[in-house]
Formats: sequence, structure tokens, C-alpha cells
Amino acid sequence: MELFETIAKRHSYRGPYRYQQVPRRDLERIVQAGLDAPSGRNHQTTTFVIVDEPELLQQIAALPDAVRSLQDARALIVCVIDRQPQAIATGQTFEIEDCVAAVENMLLALTALGYASVWLDGWLRRPGYADKVGELLGIPDYKIARVLLPIGIPAEAITAPPKKPFDERAWFNRYGA
Amino acid sequence: MELFETIAKRHSYRGPYRYQQVPRRDLERIVQAGLDAPSGRNHQTTTFVIVDEPELLQQIAALPDAVRSLQDARALIVCVIDRQPQAIATGQTFEIEDCVAAVENMLLALTALGYASVWLDGWLRRPGYADKVGELLGIPDYKIARVLLPIGIPAEAITAPPKKPFDERAWFNRYGA
Repeated sequence: MELFETIAKRHSYRGPYRYQQVPRRDLERIVQAGLDAPSGRNHQTTTFVIVDEPELLQQIAALPDAVRSLQDARALIVCVIDRQPQAIATGQTFEIEDCVAAVENMLLALTALGYASVWLDGWLRRPGYADKVGELLGIPDYKIARVLLPIGIPAEAITAPPKKPFDERAWFNRYGA
Repeated sequence: MELFETIAKRHSYRGPYRYQQVPRRDLERIVQAGLDAPSGRNHQTTTFVIVDEPELLQQIAALPDAVRSLQDARALIVCVIDRQPQAIATGQTFEIEDCVAAVENMLLALTALGYASVWLDGWLRRPGYADKVGELLGIPDYKIARVLLPIGIPAEAITAPPKKPFDERAWFNRYGA
């Protein structure tokens, strides 16, 4: 799919998924898009667990307050960073940035392949939740699950919420001009 | 340009730019790609100043330790967030995430249009630097420049640093499996 078309088409999807599985070849293409994302000083700090085992998907869906997208996702990409992000330059860490750039590439990739997802982030930040996901997936203690992307073929049309117009968020040469 | 081709082609570029200006129509398409990025609860927290005035570009390039990409960039996109990112859910803020998703969309968009850039981030985090950029662009005190993207047509071939192979960073169903 053409880039700008894909960017315009990508939207969070919280509806049900069709029953069809997501082939591993597609999951690998999506994650490869994440691996291709930029990272601070090319340190490539983000790693990924791709969950497609039905029992594991069910165990994650059974965690408290797991949203609907986790209930019938056909696959799940778990983005993992260091629990204590490492400074790589003058005390600066770029692990959140690295992770998010990869997430955005993967959201576009899965959109281009006909899938839908929603960026799950706040749920994992609540105390204990990332640890529970980590236990299920064998994530070592010094790493932490930071973002989840449930994946499936959307069973309903994706409706996009309205966005602010260009001139409320972007200006030439002077802020708010 | 096709999405996966664009993702594979996008790479940080630190070489010289050709003298050609970047038309505003292209800058607007690039920033629109940023506006189209996802944001936490659709709060759309990131705003953008698009710098294409030669005097302003020179003033930014004259700041201490400004890298080569700032010296001859034909345009610059400045991504602005709240200085004190606002919590929107149970004490959580998503402003860095919102900003980075927009940055990645814009990097892909400019790549598809034949431009090159490099994600400038750490320079702005050094004490006082974002404030200096903010003064030049009229950014209010409660906002802060978070990421800069210099833009131009690359004058040299883009060379991509090697990346780790898939199986060193991604696994099915179990971390490191």
C-alpha cells in the first residue's frame, strides 16, 4: 500500500476481530518493519515477543481489566525494553523513543496488510501488569513489556475520531502564527 | 512510494543537502503525516513549527554544537510538547509517545518524497538548548521543543548502518526462544 494512503488509513481499532489466524509470514513482515525503525545511535534497544499460541493469548486476555482487543486478538506483538533504560549519551536514554518508532512502523505495516490494532500502553504501566505479561512470556527481570499491539482482521468498519485541523497544530516559522 | 519500500529506505542522513528549497506543499504533506499519527486518547498533544525562513535557519544553525545537518538544512520541523506533560489517565502522560509517533510518520513521509533527515533529540535535551530554539520561534514558556527534523535533498548516497538480524531481537511466544 502507498505510504500516505497507509498513514491516512491507520486508526485505532477497538472492535471485534474475525476468527482468521494471522500467518507467521505476515507477523514477521510487521515485526521487521519495527526492526527497521530508527533508534538512538542505532542501539536497537527494543525487542519483540510475537504471541500467536492460543493458550498464551487466552492467559493474557484473562489478566485483570484486559480490554476487548486482547480478548479476541489472533496475535499480539509485545514490545520489550530495559526495565532501567540505559543511558547511551551524556546521561540520556532513548529507549522509549526507540520503542515508539518501532510501534508506529508496525501499526503502519499491519494496516497495509489489512489488519487492525490499537496501541495498548497505559494498561501495562499500571503496577504489576507488565510483570504478569512478562512471567507468561519468560521476559527476564531486567526487561519489561512496554507496549502491546493486538492484531487481527477487523470484523467491523474502522471509524476514525475527528482530528484537529492543520492550522491548530502547525505553523510556519513562528509558534501559533 | 509503497510502505514497506519506504520503511526499508528510511535511514538517518548526516551528509550535506543540495541547495534546492523544500516547497511548502511538501512540508505540509510531511507535517500532515505527523498530524495523522496516533496519540494517547487522541489528545493530539504535539504541535509543530515548520522553519523555512533562511535567517531563522541560520540562527538555529549558529547555536552551540549545532550538527552539520542543521548547517545546511533547507527546512526544519520542530516538534513541540508541553514542558510539563499533562497526565490524561490515572497519572499517565503520553506526550513523548505522541511526539515520537508523529516523528516516525514524518520521517517516512519525507523519505517517500525524496528528502532525507536525521532525528535530532539529545542536542535539544541539553540544558538551555530547547529554550534557545524556543526563543527564536516564539514557543511559549509552557511548551518545549522536543525533536528537530532537518530536511533537504541528500547530496550524497545514504548509507545504512548494519542492523541486528531478526532472530536476535524477535521471537515467537517466549522471550529469547
